[in-house]
Amino acid sequence: MEIREFQDLMRRIYFHRDSKRGATETFNWFVDEVEELRAAVKGRDKKALEDEFADVLAWLASLANVVGIDLEGATMKKYDDKCPKCRQVPCNCAF
Amino acid sequence: MEIREFQDLMRRIYFHRDSKRGATETFNWFVDEVEELRAAVKGRDKKALEDEFADVLAWLASLANVVGIDLEGATMKKYDDKCPKCRQVPCNCAF
Repeated sequence: MEIREFQDLMRRIYFHRDSKRGATETFNWFVDEVEELRAAVKGRDKKALEDEFADVLAWLASLANVVGIDLEGATMKKYDDKCPKCRQVPCNCAF
Repeated sequence: MEIREFQDLMRRIYFHRDSKRGATETFNWFVDEVEELRAAVKGRDKKALEDEFADVLAWLASLANVVGIDLEGATMKKYDDKCPKCRQVPCNCAF
């Protein structure tokens, strides 16, 4: 599925609720999901990891909807086909 | 761009570095980007928002590579075409 298509799906499912909640509060819910992903990364259980990656991406896309950002467009602008800093593949940045 | 295609791009650019760094440390870098997104959400500057959404998605995809998760597959398994909890569009969950 395209990133844009997924963001549209999140809009249809969650925009009515998340836009009412507002950007700051939606960001806080997103961060809760990030913390659940932290636990899953520690635990290394595949099902838990899949669930939490899905939730983090879903909330990121919904947050993008709330603040009016095209997630795919923004991402392609910066990460077109190489590292945005060193302009190489693979990245050769000194960090 | 498809979610899977983007994850592959992140693999080509960053896997050699992020896999050496490991899951915990890559997660910590991801969280730094989440904090930068928090600042952008507060600031409401469009260019900063675009940059930070792009970075968060890039690090999320790279983290998925490091822990061996197919981000698109995991996301489609949970968010196929409706809310995974109430099974409705739009979501009708009581929260």
